[in-house]
Amino acid sequence: MQLTHTPAINDSQRRQLAPLEMPPRLLLGPGPSNAHPDVLQAMNTPPVGHLDPAFLALMDEIQSLLRYVWQTENPLTIAISGTGSAAMEGAIANSITPGDTILIGVAGYFGNRLVDMAGRYSAEVRTITKPWGQVFNLQELRSALEAHRPAILALVHAETSTGARQPLLGVGELCREFDCLLLVDSVTSLGGVPLFLDEWGVDLAYSCSQKGLGCSPGASPLTMSPRAWEKLQQRQTKVSNWYLDMQLLSKYWGKERVYHHTAPINLYYGLREALRLLADEGIENSWQRHQQTVEYLWQELENIGLKLHVEPEFRLSTLTTVCIPEGVDGKEISRQLLNDYNIEIGGGLGELAQKVWRVGLMGYNSRKENVDTLVAALKQVLP
Amino acid sequence: MQLTHTPAINDSQRRQLAPLEMPPRLLLGPGPSNAHPDVLQAMNTPPVGHLDPAFLALMDEIQSLLRYVWQTENPLTIAISGTGSAAMEGAIANSITPGDTILIGVAGYFGNRLVDMAGRYSAEVRTITKPWGQVFNLQELRSALEAHRPAILALVHAETSTGARQPLLGVGELCREFDCLLLVDSVTSLGGVPLFLDEWGVDLAYSCSQKGLGCSPGASPLTMSPRAWEKLQQRQTKVSNWYLDMQLLSKYWGKERVYHHTAPINLYYGLREALRLLADEGIENSWQRHQQTVEYLWQELENIGLKLHVEPEFRLSTLTTVCIPEGVDGKEISRQLLNDYNIEIGGGLGELAQKVWRVGLMGYNSRKENVDTLVAALKQVLP
Repeated sequence: MQLTHTPAINDSQRRQLAPLEMPPRLLLGPGPSNAHPDVLQAMNTPPVGHLDPAFLALMDEIQSLLRYVWQTENPLTIAISGTGSAAMEGAIANSITPGDTILIGVAGYFGNRLVDMAGRYSAEVRTITKPWGQVFNLQELRSALEAHRPAILALVHAETSTGARQPLLGVGELCREFDCLLLVDSVTSLGGVPLFLDEWGVDLAYSCSQKGLGCSPGASPLTMSPRAWEKLQQRQTKVSNWYLDMQLLSKYWGKERVYHHTAPINLYYGLREALRLLADEGIENSWQRHQQTVEYLWQELENIGLKLHVEPEFRLSTLTTVCIPEGVDGKEISRQLLNDYNIEIGGGLGELAQKVWRVGLMGYNSRKENVDTLVAALKQVLP
Repeated sequence: MQLTHTPAINDSQRRQLAPLEMPPRLLLGPGPSNAHPDVLQAMNTPPVGHLDPAFLALMDEIQSLLRYVWQTENPLTIAISGTGSAAMEGAIANSITPGDTILIGVAGYFGNRLVDMAGRYSAEVRTITKPWGQVFNLQELRSALEAHRPAILALVHAETSTGARQPLLGVGELCREFDCLLLVDSVTSLGGVPLFLDEWGVDLAYSCSQKGLGCSPGASPLTMSPRAWEKLQQRQTKVSNWYLDMQLLSKYWGKERVYHHTAPINLYYGLREALRLLADEGIENSWQRHQQTVEYLWQELENIGLKLHVEPEFRLSTLTTVCIPEGVDGKEISRQLLNDYNIEIGGGLGELAQKVWRVGLMGYNSRKENVDTLVAALKQVLP
């Protein structure tokens, strides 16, 4: 190789930078949340190879613990090598056979994202809608299933854009009655909100690592029931997505251990630690902790005169939408919290843009002292 | 919420685990390589939000430094939130309009992967093939372009399965003559092997973080030339992949800063540090270091009687394929290196299965002392 014959180096995009320094934020928005310090420490472990026996054993631990936190026995329970939206797309890509009708419950931003994705995988997309912040009851779902006869019903268990919790009890039975798969977004519920995939008859679910699990983002849980897997096995064409193809991924996560792609090794270290800590705590204790912390938040916010957007019965324990009082510039308040107090909270999306703030208390961050810190700062910055 | 009405907790998949402990491997296979310690340290920094001004500034630094190491001025130069195969799929998904003919040079495993992916995006796939370990010359490429008249020519610059380097000088001109885009896999070359995207007329390229860049896997570079971008802007249908849709991603990485997905924050910290270190070293110095280290490896391997698979002219400086001597059980040697010496090397894939070992000296691992460690161990375990 003759380096002397190569072109001159273009230095126009070269930069001289100082070592990384980031502000110490308290992340109380819709996610990411602060990862548990032990999780970050685990991510600092030098990597091994993606086919190293030590790594394969760690993958088994992740699978088992994901089943535990999801309360499922699904053999095909893995982490996708991407963030929550990649796992969402994995659920869509592996459940829709082109031409399938999918019925999607849309009462927020992430219902709309499912609509966008499903269309890209050649589904006939039908929707049932509600104002942002509300949920669907069983009778509404039954009517929609009767009207549309879908192959898949997709619901968002925890709508990150609204803070509403979609009840799932009874929906699985309904889906069996109408012979369709039940696909559930649990991005903002897994680890923090009670969720019983097998009891509730959920066929496909996905989540992320940086919310209720208390990890860093980038390795995202995805699970498929034997019913969903059987449908995938029967399709005649390849899934229109190579990276997220569960038939290929199952050969890497399963007994064959066939190389598919290089996993994000250090993130899997973190995810394993986050799940280990959660199993040590006990999933029901984690749910209780999230519930107690958020009820304290609601009380404290109401004490300073703020109103909440969602009816108490359907509020998430992980994410709360707070109504921005009339005359208050919501963005400016968020900016002050970030710049003056190093606290991040989220703003509203879509129908709720500029109407709510979104406050997350998720995973490691679901602790009363964080509520106190936030409320003390809010008292300072609110007019 | 009434936790008392919920089903009993299933503890069958719960595990009591000790804190993470992984073996201290020296990763001299086809990747991942050991990340630079400063990179791992940076990944241990508490995360900020994906729309935090401090994070947006870091994204700009990543974009600029990726342009530098790729030697391109492409505005659309980003990191995909997944590993190298996701960036590969991003290049395919965003360049192929359904029905397009794509011509793919296949002389190894990753050429075949491109074939698989391109088919999933409804391309008319044509191939030009060579035995694994060889490369295509300009005349062969010209003949194939004349025969197939593709919309895209896809070549693997650094074929990770064979250790061969596909020369690219002159290919860009050829592609302009035949009015097609040039798509290049630089997974195993970026950072370690001379690469001049703009000078060589490359329209789409992708890579990974865990090889020549010396980072941990999970955030993968992708770049598109203005020509490739223009074609994408003109298509009438959505890209059949939401997560990797560059029209959406460009609004997050560009001036609009529209939320798309939650980035793997801590990996981006690592990637930024890896790129910072590379810019400090200087890209041409990194190329020289890789070349000097690998020439030392070749010499040392030949000194102990081993033969190399690829002709010297076309060998990669990042990855070397070593012929397994007759009568030697290659897998057993690899197993001994791993178990007794904590050294990982790779085995052969496809046509080269059980015929070669693959030795990577990439990024932080491209140092003479690693060659000495490997060769000393090989002397012990070879019969």
